Amino acid sequence: MDRDKQLVKRIGIFDSGAGGLTVLKKLRASIPGVTYYYLGDTARLPYGTKSSETIVRYSKQNASFLLSRRIDILIVACNTASAYAIPALREFAEDIPVTGVIYPGARRAATTSQNGRIGIIGTTATISSGKYQNKLKELDPDLKVFTTPAPLLVPLVEEGLISGEIPEKVILMYLKPLLEKNIDTLILGCTHYPLLKQTIQKMVPELKLVDSAEPIKDILLQEYRFPGGNGKTEIFVTDYPEGFGSLSQRFLEGNFDKIEHIDLQNLWRIPDDKKIKKTR
Amino acid sequence: MDRDKQLVKRIGIFDSGAGGLTVLKKLRASIPGVTYYYLGDTARLPYGTKSSETIVRYSKQNASFLLSRRIDILIVACNTASAYAIPALREFAEDIPVTGVIYPGARRAATTSQNGRIGIIGTTATISSGKYQNKLKELDPDLKVFTTPAPLLVPLVEEGLISGEIPEKVILMYLKPLLEKNIDTLILGCTHYPLLKQTIQKMVPELKLVDSAEPIKDILLQEYRFPGGNGKTEIFVTDYPEGFGSLSQRFLEGNFDKIEHIDLQNLWRIPDDKKIKKTR
Repeated sequence: MDRDKQLVKRIGIFDSGAGGLTVLKKLRASIPGVTYYYLGDTARLPYGTKSSETIVRYSKQNASFLLSRRIDILIVACNTASAYAIPALREFAEDIPVTGVIYPGARRAATTSQNGRIGIIGTTATISSGKYQNKLKELDPDLKVFTTPAPLLVPLVEEGLISGEIPEKVILMYLKPLLEKNIDTLILGCTHYPLLKQTIQKMVPELKLVDSAEPIKDILLQEYRFPGGNGKTEIFVTDYPEGFGSLSQRFLEGNFDKIEHIDLQNLWRIPDDKKIKKTR
Repeated sequence: MDRDKQLVKRIGIFDSGAGGLTVLKKLRASIPGVTYYYLGDTARLPYGTKSSETIVRYSKQNASFLLSRRIDILIVACNTASAYAIPALREFAEDIPVTGVIYPGARRAATTSQNGRIGIIGTTATISSGKYQNKLKELDPDLKVFTTPAPLLVPLVEEGLISGEIPEKVILMYLKPLLEKNIDTLILGCTHYPLLKQTIQKMVPELKLVDSAEPIKDILLQEYRFPGGNGKTEIFVTDYPEGFGSLSQRFLEGNFDKIEHIDLQNLWRIPDDKKIKKTR
Protein backbone atom coordinates (compact mmCIF):
# COMPACT_ATOMS: atom_id res chain seq x y z
CA MET A 1 0.00 0.00 0.00
CA ASP A 2 2.92 2.27 0.81
CA ARG A 3 4.01 1.71 -2.83
CA ASP A 4 0.99 3.70 -4.01
CA LYS A 5 2.32 6.79 -2.33
CA GLN A 6 4.21 9.30 -4.41
CA LEU A 7 8.00 9.20 -4.00
CA VAL A 8 9.31 12.63 -2.93
CA LYS A 9 12.99 13.25 -3.64
CA ARG A 10 13.16 17.04 -3.57
CA ILE A 11 11.32 19.43 -1.29
CA GLY A 12 11.25 23.18 -1.81
CA ILE A 13 10.59 25.44 1.17
CA PHE A 14 10.31 29.19 1.22
CA ASP A 15 9.92 31.84 3.86
CA SER A 16 10.36 35.60 3.96
CA GLY A 17 13.63 35.05 5.84
CA ALA A 18 15.36 32.66 8.20
CA GLY A 19 12.26 31.74 10.27
CA GLY A 20 11.25 28.83 8.00
CA LEU A 21 14.50 27.11 8.89
CA THR A 22 12.66 25.94 12.03
CA VAL A 23 10.47 23.89 9.66
CA LEU A 24 13.45 22.68 7.60
CA LYS A 25 15.22 21.61 10.80
CA LYS A 26 12.27 19.44 11.89
CA LEU A 27 11.85 17.89 8.41
CA ARG A 28 15.55 17.09 7.99
CA ALA A 29 15.66 15.35 11.37
CA SER A 30 12.78 13.00 10.44
CA ILE A 31 13.17 12.75 6.66
CA PRO A 32 16.93 12.89 6.01
CA GLY A 33 16.90 11.23 2.56
CA VAL A 34 15.27 14.17 0.78
CA THR A 35 17.17 16.99 -0.91
CA TYR A 36 15.99 20.31 0.49
CA TYR A 37 15.99 23.65 -1.34
CA TYR A 38 15.30 26.50 1.04
CA LEU A 39 14.65 30.03 -0.17
CA GLY A 40 14.63 32.99 2.23
CA ASP A 41 13.39 36.20 0.57
CA THR A 42 15.64 38.27 2.82
CA ALA A 43 15.82 41.22 0.42
CA ARG A 44 12.13 41.92 0.94
CA LEU A 45 11.38 40.64 4.44
CA PRO A 46 9.29 41.01 6.52
CA TYR A 47 6.05 39.98 4.76
CA GLY A 48 3.88 40.35 7.86
CA THR A 49 3.40 44.10 7.58
CA LYS A 50 2.76 44.16 3.81
CA SER A 51 -0.41 44.08 1.72
CA SER A 52 -2.00 40.89 0.42
CA GLU A 53 -1.26 41.78 -3.24
CA THR A 54 2.42 42.24 -2.48
CA ILE A 55 2.58 39.02 -0.45
CA VAL A 56 1.02 37.06 -3.34
CA ARG A 57 3.41 38.58 -5.91
CA TYR A 58 6.49 37.83 -3.81
CA SER A 59 5.26 34.30 -3.07
CA LYS A 60 4.84 33.51 -6.78
CA GLN A 61 8.35 34.75 -7.47
CA ASN A 62 9.69 32.52 -4.71
CA ALA A 63 7.72 29.52 -5.99
CA SER A 64 8.95 30.17 -9.52
CA PHE A 65 12.54 29.85 -8.39
CA LEU A 66 11.97 26.69 -6.33
CA LEU A 67 9.98 25.01 -9.13
CA SER A 68 13.03 25.53 -11.34
CA ARG A 69 14.88 23.14 -8.94
CA ARG A 70 12.43 20.40 -10.05
CA ILE A 71 10.93 19.97 -6.58
CA ASP A 72 8.24 17.36 -5.88
CA ILE A 73 6.48 19.34 -3.14
CA LEU A 74 6.40 23.03 -2.27
CA ILE A 75 6.14 23.98 1.40
CA VAL A 76 5.20 27.54 2.24
CA ALA A 77 6.90 27.87 5.63
CA CYS A 78 5.86 31.50 6.01
CA ASN A 79 2.59 31.94 7.90
CA THR A 80 1.85 35.25 6.19
CA ALA A 81 2.35 33.77 2.70
CA SER A 82 0.33 30.70 3.75
CA ALA A 83 -2.49 32.99 4.81
CA TYR A 84 -2.71 34.85 1.51
CA ALA A 85 -0.99 33.02 -1.32
CA ILE A 86 -1.92 29.31 -1.19
CA PRO A 87 -4.71 29.41 -3.84
CA ALA A 88 -2.54 31.51 -6.19
CA LEU A 89 0.43 29.19 -5.63
CA ARG A 90 -1.63 26.04 -6.27
CA GLU A 91 -2.76 27.48 -9.59
CA PHE A 92 0.78 28.59 -10.39
CA ALA A 93 2.49 25.31 -9.39
CA GLU A 94 0.03 23.23 -11.49
CA ASP A 95 0.61 19.55 -10.57
CA ILE A 96 3.14 20.10 -7.76
CA PRO A 97 1.46 19.81 -4.33
CA VAL A 98 1.61 22.99 -2.25
CA THR A 99 1.45 22.82 1.56
CA GLY A 100 1.13 25.83 3.83
CA VAL A 101 1.51 26.03 7.60
CA ILE A 102 -2.00 27.17 8.56
CA TYR A 103 -3.98 23.94 8.18
CA PRO A 104 -1.42 21.68 9.92
CA GLY A 105 -1.09 24.12 12.84
CA ALA A 106 -4.84 24.65 13.20
CA ARG A 107 -5.55 20.89 13.12
CA ARG A 108 -2.91 20.21 15.77
CA ALA A 109 -4.28 23.00 18.00
CA ALA A 110 -7.85 21.71 17.67
CA THR A 111 -6.82 18.22 18.86
CA THR A 112 -4.51 19.61 21.59
CA SER A 113 -6.93 21.94 23.38
CA GLN A 114 -8.86 20.45 26.29
CA ASN A 115 -11.13 23.40 27.07
CA GLY A 116 -11.75 24.45 23.45
CA ARG A 117 -10.25 27.90 24.00
CA ILE A 118 -7.35 28.61 21.61
CA GLY A 119 -5.15 31.68 21.29
CA ILE A 120 -3.23 32.70 18.16
CA ILE A 121 -0.31 35.09 17.86
CA GLY A 122 1.14 36.00 14.48
CA THR A 123 2.14 38.89 12.26
CA THR A 124 -0.35 41.68 11.62
CA ALA A 125 -1.07 40.31 8.13
CA THR A 126 -1.53 36.70 9.30
CA ILE A 127 -3.94 37.65 12.07
CA SER A 128 -5.98 40.05 9.95
CA SER A 129 -6.30 37.42 7.19
CA GLY A 130 -8.54 35.43 9.56
CA LYS A 131 -7.23 32.19 8.01
CA TYR A 132 -6.29 30.40 11.24
CA GLN A 133 -9.56 31.51 12.81
CA ASN A 134 -11.61 30.20 9.86
CA LYS A 135 -9.72 26.92 9.66
CA LEU A 136 -10.27 26.28 13.39
CA LYS A 137 -13.99 27.05 13.06
CA GLU A 138 -14.20 24.64 10.10
CA LEU A 139 -12.55 21.91 12.15
CA ASP A 140 -14.82 22.53 15.13
CA PRO A 141 -17.45 25.28 15.16
CA ASP A 142 -17.57 25.15 18.98
CA LEU A 143 -13.96 26.30 19.43
CA LYS A 144 -13.47 29.73 20.98
CA VAL A 145 -10.61 31.53 19.25
CA PHE A 146 -8.77 34.63 20.50
CA THR A 147 -6.08 36.39 18.49
CA THR A 148 -3.53 39.14 18.76
CA PRO A 149 -0.99 40.43 16.23
CA ALA A 150 2.50 40.38 17.79
CA PRO A 151 4.72 42.30 15.34
CA LEU A 152 7.58 42.97 17.77
CA LEU A 153 8.39 39.30 18.26
CA VAL A 154 10.03 38.87 14.84
CA PRO A 155 12.56 41.70 15.33
CA LEU A 156 13.25 40.44 18.86
CA VAL A 157 14.15 36.98 17.55
CA GLU A 158 16.16 38.42 14.66
CA GLU A 159 18.13 40.43 17.23
CA GLY A 160 18.75 37.26 19.26
CA LEU A 161 16.73 38.63 22.19
CA ILE A 162 14.93 35.36 22.96
CA SER A 163 15.12 35.34 26.77
CA GLY A 164 15.38 37.85 29.59
CA GLU A 165 13.47 40.89 30.76
CA ILE A 166 12.73 42.63 27.43
CA PRO A 167 11.27 39.65 25.53
CA GLU A 168 9.33 38.64 28.66
CA LYS A 169 7.76 42.10 28.94
CA VAL A 170 6.88 42.14 25.23
CA ILE A 171 5.46 38.59 25.35
CA LEU A 172 3.39 39.49 28.42
CA MET A 173 2.01 42.56 26.65
CA TYR A 174 0.77 40.35 23.80
CA LEU A 175 -0.33 37.29 25.82
CA LYS A 176 -2.11 39.02 28.71
CA PRO A 177 -5.43 39.61 26.88
CA LEU A 178 -5.35 36.01 25.57
CA LEU A 179 -4.60 34.49 28.98
CA GLU A 180 -7.45 36.53 30.46
CA LYS A 181 -9.71 34.65 28.03
CA ASN A 182 -8.55 31.43 29.70
CA ILE A 183 -6.92 29.82 26.62
CA ASP A 184 -5.17 26.49 27.24
CA THR A 185 -3.49 26.27 23.81
CA LEU A 186 -1.52 28.89 21.89
CA ILE A 187 -0.76 28.70 18.17
CA LEU A 188 2.67 30.19 17.41
CA GLY A 189 1.52 31.55 14.07
CA CYS A 190 4.91 32.65 12.74
CA THR A 191 8.00 30.56 12.01
CA HIS A 192 10.13 32.86 14.16
CA TYR A 193 8.19 32.18 17.32
CA PRO A 194 9.39 28.61 18.10
CA LEU A 195 12.65 30.23 19.23
CA LEU A 196 10.66 31.94 22.00
CA LYS A 197 9.03 28.66 23.12
CA GLN A 198 11.24 28.16 26.18
CA THR A 199 10.68 31.72 27.38
CA ILE A 200 6.90 31.52 26.89
CA GLN A 201 6.78 28.11 28.55
CA LYS A 202 8.77 29.40 31.53
CA MET A 203 6.32 32.31 31.90
CA VAL A 204 3.14 30.18 31.49
CA PRO A 205 4.09 26.53 32.15
CA GLU A 206 0.56 25.14 31.79
CA LEU A 207 -0.03 26.66 28.32
CA LYS A 208 0.23 24.21 25.39
CA LEU A 209 2.26 25.68 22.54
CA VAL A 210 1.59 24.57 18.96
CA ASP A 211 3.77 25.35 15.98
CA SER A 212 3.45 23.96 12.46
CA ALA A 213 6.79 22.21 11.99
CA GLU A 214 5.82 19.00 13.80
CA PRO A 215 2.36 18.58 12.18
CA ILE A 216 3.76 19.31 8.68
CA LYS A 217 6.31 16.56 9.20
CA ASP A 218 3.55 14.16 10.31
CA ILE A 219 1.42 14.98 7.25
CA LEU A 220 4.35 14.42 4.89
CA LEU A 221 5.27 11.09 6.52
CA GLN A 222 1.67 9.97 6.22
CA GLU A 223 1.05 10.97 2.61
CA TYR A 224 4.36 10.38 0.77
CA ARG A 225 7.35 8.05 0.68
CA PHE A 226 10.97 9.18 0.64
CA PRO A 227 14.39 7.89 -0.42
CA GLY A 228 16.82 6.55 2.22
CA GLY A 229 20.30 7.90 2.88
CA ASN A 230 21.14 11.53 3.33
CA GLY A 231 20.05 14.23 0.91
CA LYS A 232 21.74 17.58 0.64
CA THR A 233 20.45 20.97 1.81
CA GLU A 234 20.87 24.07 -0.32
CA ILE A 235 19.93 27.49 0.99
CA PHE A 236 19.19 30.46 -1.25
CA VAL A 237 18.66 34.04 -0.12
CA THR A 238 17.64 37.11 -2.10
CA ASP A 239 19.89 39.26 0.08
CA TYR A 240 22.96 38.23 2.00
CA PRO A 241 23.67 40.68 4.78
CA GLU A 242 26.55 40.01 7.13
CA GLY A 243 24.45 38.64 9.97
CA PHE A 244 22.59 35.98 7.97
CA GLY A 245 25.04 33.17 8.65
CA SER A 246 24.76 33.42 12.43
CA LEU A 247 20.99 33.90 12.21
CA SER A 248 20.66 30.70 10.13
CA GLN A 249 22.79 28.84 12.61
CA ARG A 250 20.46 29.95 15.39
CA PHE A 251 17.41 28.63 13.54
CA LEU A 252 18.76 25.51 11.88
CA GLU A 253 21.24 24.27 14.48
CA GLY A 254 23.04 22.33 11.79
CA ASN A 255 24.98 22.54 8.58
CA PHE A 256 23.96 23.01 4.98
CA ASP A 257 25.74 22.20 1.73
CA LYS A 258 25.65 25.63 0.21
CA ILE A 259 24.24 29.10 0.64
CA GLU A 260 23.80 31.20 -2.46
CA HIS A 261 22.54 34.65 -3.30
CA ILE A 262 19.93 34.90 -6.08
CA ASP A 263 18.25 37.86 -7.75
CA LEU A 264 14.51 37.17 -7.91
CA GLN A 265 13.63 40.41 -9.66
CA ASN A 266 15.52 39.33 -12.75
CA LEU A 267 14.61 35.65 -12.51
CA TRP A 268 10.96 36.52 -12.38
CA ARG A 269 11.02 38.46 -15.64
CA ILE A 270 10.57 35.38 -17.79
CA PRO A 271 7.38 33.98 -16.23
CA ASP A 272 6.00 37.48 -15.74
CA ASP A 273 6.47 38.41 -19.39
CA LYS A 274 4.98 35.08 -20.45
CA LYS A 275 1.96 35.76 -18.30
CA ILE A 276 1.49 39.18 -19.81
CA LYS A 277 1.54 37.66 -23.27
CA LYS A 278 -0.91 34.95 -22.28
CA THR A 279 -3.48 37.39 -20.92
CA ARG A 280 -3.27 39.73 -23.88
CA MET B 1 22.70 88.02 -4.39
CA ASP B 2 19.72 85.86 -3.48
CA ARG B 3 18.79 86.03 -7.18
CA ASP B 4 21.84 83.92 -8.04
CA LYS B 5 20.45 81.02 -6.09
CA GLN B 6 18.64 78.30 -7.95
CA LEU B 7 14.84 78.43 -7.68
CA VAL B 8 13.51 75.14 -6.28
CA LYS B 9 9.85 74.41 -7.05
CA ARG B 10 9.69 70.66 -6.57
CA ILE B 11 11.45 68.53 -3.98
CA GLY B 12 11.55 64.74 -4.08
CA ILE B 13 12.09 62.84 -0.84
CA PHE B 14 12.39 59.10 -0.37
CA ASP B 15 12.70 56.77 2.56
CA SER B 16 12.24 53.05 3.06
CA GLY B 17 8.93 53.79 4.76
CA ALA B 18 7.12 56.40 6.79
CA GLY B 19 10.13 57.56 8.83
CA GLY B 20 11.23 60.20 6.30
CA LEU B 21 7.93 61.99 6.88
CA THR B 22 9.66 63.51 9.94
CA VAL B 23 11.93 65.31 7.43
CA LEU B 24 9.02 66.26 5.15
CA LYS B 25 7.14 67.68 8.14
CA LYS B 26 10.04 69.96 9.08
CA LEU B 27 10.58 71.15 5.48
CA ARG B 28 6.89 71.86 4.85
CA ALA B 29 6.67 73.96 8.01
CA SER B 30 9.57 76.21 6.92
CA ILE B 31 9.30 76.04 3.13
CA PRO B 32 5.58 75.81 2.37
CA GLY B 33 5.73 77.08 -1.23
CA VAL B 34 7.40 73.97 -2.63
CA THR B 35 5.58 70.97 -4.07
CA TYR B 36 6.73 67.83 -2.28
CA TYR B 37 6.79 64.31 -3.72
CA TYR B 38 7.41 61.74 -1.02
CA LEU B 39 8.10 58.10 -1.82
CA GLY B 40 8.04 55.42 0.88
CA ASP B 41 9.34 52.06 -0.36
CA THR B 42 7.01 50.25 2.02
CA ALA B 43 6.92 47.04 -0.06
CA ARG B 44 10.59 46.41 0.69
CA LEU B 45 11.21 48.07 4.05
CA PRO B 46 13.24 47.94 6.23
CA TYR B 47 16.52 48.79 4.48
CA GLY B 48 18.60 48.78 7.66
CA THR B 49 19.08 45.01 7.80
CA LYS B 50 19.85 44.55 4.08
CA SER B 51 23.09 44.40 2.11
CA SER B 52 24.72 47.45 0.53
CA GLU B 53 24.12 46.15 -3.04
CA THR B 54 20.41 45.75 -2.35
CA ILE B 55 20.17 49.18 -0.70
CA VAL B 56 21.83 50.84 -3.72
CA ARG B 57 19.54 49.02 -6.19
CA TYR B 58 16.39 49.97 -4.29
CA SER B 59 17.59 53.58 -3.90
CA LYS B 60 18.15 53.96 -7.64
CA GLN B 61 14.66 52.63 -8.34
CA ASN B 62 13.23 55.16 -5.86
CA ALA B 63 15.23 58.01 -7.42
CA SER B 64 14.14 56.95 -10.89
CA PHE B 65 10.50 57.38 -9.92
CA LEU B 66 10.99 60.76 -8.21
CA LEU B 67 13.08 62.13 -11.10
CA SER B 68 10.11 61.35 -13.36
CA ARG B 69 8.18 63.96 -11.30
CA ARG B 70 10.67 66.59 -12.62
CA ILE B 71 12.02 67.41 -9.16
CA ASP B 72 14.68 70.12 -8.65
CA ILE B 73 16.36 68.45 -5.64
CA LEU B 74 16.41 64.88 -4.38
CA ILE B 75 16.54 64.34 -0.62
CA VAL B 76 17.45 60.90 0.64
CA ALA B 77 15.64 60.93 3.99
CA CYS B 78 16.67 57.36 4.79
CA ASN B 79 19.88 57.15 6.82
CA THR B 80 20.68 53.68 5.52
CA ALA B 81 20.29 54.76 1.88
CA SER B 82 22.27 57.94 2.64
CA ALA B 83 25.07 55.80 4.04
CA TYR B 84 25.39 53.59 0.96
CA ALA B 85 23.77 55.10 -2.09
CA ILE B 86 24.69 58.80 -2.34
CA PRO B 87 27.57 58.42 -4.86
CA ALA B 88 25.50 56.06 -7.03
CA LEU B 89 22.51 58.41 -6.84
CA ARG B 90 24.58 61.49 -7.75
CA GLU B 91 25.81 59.68 -10.85
CA PHE B 92 22.30 58.48 -11.64
CA ALA B 93 20.57 61.85 -11.08
CA GLU B 94 23.09 63.69 -13.30
CA ASP B 95 22.50 67.46 -12.82
CA ILE B 96 19.87 67.22 -10.05
CA PRO B 97 21.42 67.88 -6.60
CA VAL B 98 21.19 64.95 -4.20
CA THR B 99 21.23 65.54 -0.42
CA GLY B 100 21.47 62.80 2.17
CA VAL B 101 20.96 63.01 5.92
CA ILE B 102 24.44 61.99 7.12
CA TYR B 103 26.42 65.16 6.44
CA PRO B 104 23.81 67.59 7.84
CA GLY B 105 23.38 65.49 10.99
CA ALA B 106 27.12 65.03 11.53
CA ARG B 107 27.83 68.76 11.08
CA ARG B 108 25.09 69.72 13.54
CA ALA B 109 26.39 67.20 16.10
CA ALA B 110 29.97 68.46 15.75
CA THR B 111 28.91 72.04 16.53
CA THR B 112 26.52 70.95 19.30
CA SER B 113 28.85 68.83 21.41
CA GLN B 114 30.68 70.65 24.23
CA ASN B 115 32.94 67.82 25.39
CA GLY B 116 33.70 66.38 21.93
CA ARG B 117 32.16 63.00 22.79
CA ILE B 118 29.36 62.02 20.40
CA GLY B 119 27.16 58.91 20.35
CA ILE B 120 25.36 57.55 17.29
CA ILE B 121 22.43 55.13 17.16
CA GLY B 122 21.10 53.84 13.84
CA THR B 123 20.18 50.71 11.92
CA THR B 124 22.71 47.89 11.68
CA ALA B 125 23.55 48.87 8.09
CA THR B 126 23.96 52.59 8.86
CA ILE B 127 26.28 51.98 11.81
CA SER B 128 28.39 49.36 10.04
CA SER B 129 28.80 51.67 7.01
CA GLY B 130 30.96 53.92 9.22
CA LYS B 131 29.69 56.97 7.29
CA TYR B 132 28.64 59.09 10.27
CA GLN B 133 31.87 58.19 12.07
CA ASN B 134 34.02 59.19 9.04
CA LYS B 135 32.12 62.41 8.43
CA LEU B 136 32.55 63.47 12.08
CA LYS B 137 36.28 62.69 11.96
CA GLU B 138 36.59 64.74 8.76
CA LEU B 139 34.86 67.67 10.46
CA ASP B 140 37.04 67.42 13.57
CA PRO B 141 39.68 64.68 13.99
CA ASP B 142 39.67 65.21 17.78
CA LEU B 143 36.05 64.11 18.21
CA LYS B 144 35.49 60.88 20.10
CA VAL B 145 32.69 58.87 18.49
CA PHE B 146 30.82 55.92 20.01
CA THR B 147 28.19 53.93 18.12
CA THR B 148 25.62 51.21 18.59
CA PRO B 149 23.17 49.64 16.15
CA ALA B 150 19.64 49.85 17.57
CA PRO B 151 17.51 47.65 15.28
CA LEU B 152 14.56 47.24 17.65
CA LEU B 153 13.74 50.95 17.72
CA VAL B 154 12.21 50.99 14.23
CA PRO B 155 9.67 48.22 14.93
CA LEU B 156 8.86 49.87 18.29
CA VAL B 157 8.02 53.16 16.57
CA GLU B 158 6.10 51.40 13.79
CA GLU B 159 4.03 49.69 16.52
CA GLY B 160 3.36 53.06 18.15
CA LEU B 161 5.27 52.02 21.29
CA ILE B 162 7.04 55.36 21.73
CA SER B 163 6.73 55.78 25.51
CA GLY B 164 6.37 53.61 28.58
CA GLU B 165 8.22 50.72 30.13
CA ILE B 166 9.08 48.62 27.05
CA PRO B 167 10.61 51.38 24.89
CA GLU B 168 12.44 52.74 27.95
CA LYS B 169 14.00 49.34 28.65
CA VAL B 170 15.01 48.89 25.00
CA ILE B 171 16.42 52.43 24.78
CA LEU B 172 18.38 51.89 28.00
CA MET B 173 19.83 48.65 26.63
CA TYR B 174 21.17 50.55 23.61
CA LEU B 175 22.19 53.81 25.31
CA LYS B 176 23.88 52.42 28.43
CA PRO B 177 27.26 51.66 26.81
CA LEU B 178 27.24 55.08 25.09
CA LEU B 179 26.35 56.96 28.28
CA GLU B 180 29.15 55.13 30.09
CA LYS B 181 31.50 56.75 27.56
CA ASN B 182 30.27 60.11 28.81
CA ILE B 183 28.76 61.36 25.52
CA ASP B 184 26.99 64.74 25.69
CA THR B 185 25.42 64.56 22.21
CA LEU B 186 23.51 61.74 20.52
CA ILE B 187 22.87 61.51 16.78
CA LEU B 188 19.48 59.95 16.08
CA GLY B 189 20.74 58.21 12.95
CA CYS B 190 17.40 56.97 11.64
CA THR B 191 14.33 58.97 10.58
CA HIS B 192 12.14 56.89 12.88
CA TYR B 193 13.97 57.92 16.02
CA PRO B 194 12.74 61.55 16.35
CA LEU B 195 9.45 60.05 17.54
CA LEU B 196 11.35 58.67 20.55
CA LYS B 197 12.93 62.05 21.37
CA GLN B 198 10.62 62.88 24.27
CA THR B 199 11.15 59.49 25.89
CA ILE B 200 14.94 59.63 25.51
CA GLN B 201 15.00 63.22 26.78
CA LYS B 202 12.91 62.25 29.80
CA MET B 203 15.35 59.43 30.59
CA VAL B 204 18.54 61.49 30.05
CA PRO B 205 17.57 65.20 30.27
CA GLU B 206 21.13 66.55 29.87
CA LEU B 207 21.80 64.64 26.61
CA LYS B 208 21.64 66.77 23.45
CA LEU B 209 19.71 64.99 20.70
CA VAL B 210 20.50 65.70 17.05
CA ASP B 211 18.41 64.58 14.08
CA SER B 212 18.85 65.59 10.45
CA ALA B 213 15.52 67.25 9.68
CA GLU B 214 16.43 70.66 11.17
CA PRO B 215 19.94 70.91 9.62
CA ILE B 216 18.68 69.80 6.18
CA LYS B 217 16.08 72.56 6.31
CA ASP B 218 18.80 75.09 7.23
CA ILE B 219 21.05 73.97 4.36
CA LEU B 220 18.20 74.24 1.85
CA LEU B 221 17.21 77.72 3.08
CA GLN B 222 20.82 78.82 2.76
CA GLU B 223 21.54 77.43 -0.70
CA TYR B 224 18.31 77.80 -2.69
CA ARG B 225 15.34 80.09 -3.14
CA PHE B 226 11.71 78.95 -3.17
CA PRO B 227 8.33 80.10 -4.47
CA GLY B 228 5.81 81.69 -2.08
CA GLY B 229 2.31 80.41 -1.42
CA ASN B 230 1.44 76.85 -0.59
CA GLY B 231 2.65 73.88 -2.64
CA LYS B 232 0.96 70.52 -2.63
CA THR B 233 2.22 67.29 -1.04
CA GLU B 234 1.89 63.97 -2.84
CA ILE B 235 2.79 60.73 -1.14
CA PHE B 236 3.60 57.53 -2.99
CA VAL B 237 4.10 54.10 -1.47
CA THR B 238 5.18 50.83 -3.06
CA ASP B 239 2.87 48.95 -0.73
CA TYR B 240 -0.26 50.15 1.01
CA PRO B 241 -1.05 48.01 4.01
CA GLU B 242 -4.02 48.89 6.18
CA GLY B 243 -2.06 50.61 8.92
CA PHE B 244 -0.13 53.02 6.70
CA GLY B 245 -2.60 55.88 6.96
CA SER B 246 -2.43 56.08 10.75
CA LEU B 247 1.35 55.59 10.71
CA SER B 248 1.76 58.53 8.29
CA GLN B 249 -0.48 60.65 10.44
CA ARG B 250 1.76 59.89 13.44
CA PHE B 251 4.88 60.98 11.56
CA LEU B 252 3.59 63.89 9.52
CA GLU B 253 1.00 65.38 11.88
CA GLY B 254 -0.69 67.01 8.93
CA ASN B 255 -2.52 66.46 5.69
CA PHE B 256 -1.39 65.58 2.21
CA ASP B 257 -3.05 66.02 -1.16
CA LYS B 258 -2.90 62.44 -2.30
CA ILE B 259 -1.50 59.06 -1.44
CA GLU B 260 -0.95 56.65 -4.30
CA HIS B 261 0.34 53.13 -4.72
CA ILE B 262 3.08 52.60 -7.35
CA ASP B 263 4.83 49.48 -8.64
CA LEU B 264 8.57 50.16 -8.72
CA GLN B 265 9.53 46.75 -10.06
CA ASN B 266 7.83 47.49 -13.36
CA LEU B 267 8.79 51.16 -13.48
CA TRP B 268 12.43 50.29 -13.08
CA ARG B 269 12.59 47.94 -16.03
CA ILE B 270 13.27 50.66 -18.53
CA PRO B 271 16.36 52.25 -16.96
CA ASP B 272 17.65 48.84 -15.90
CA ASP B 273 17.48 47.44 -19.44
CA LYS B 274 19.14 50.58 -20.77
CA LYS B 275 21.96 50.11 -18.33
CA ILE B 276 22.47 46.50 -19.35
CA LYS B 277 22.72 47.56 -22.99
CA LYS B 278 25.16 50.33 -22.17
CA THR B 279 27.61 48.10 -20.31
CA ARG B 280 27.65 45.43 -23.01
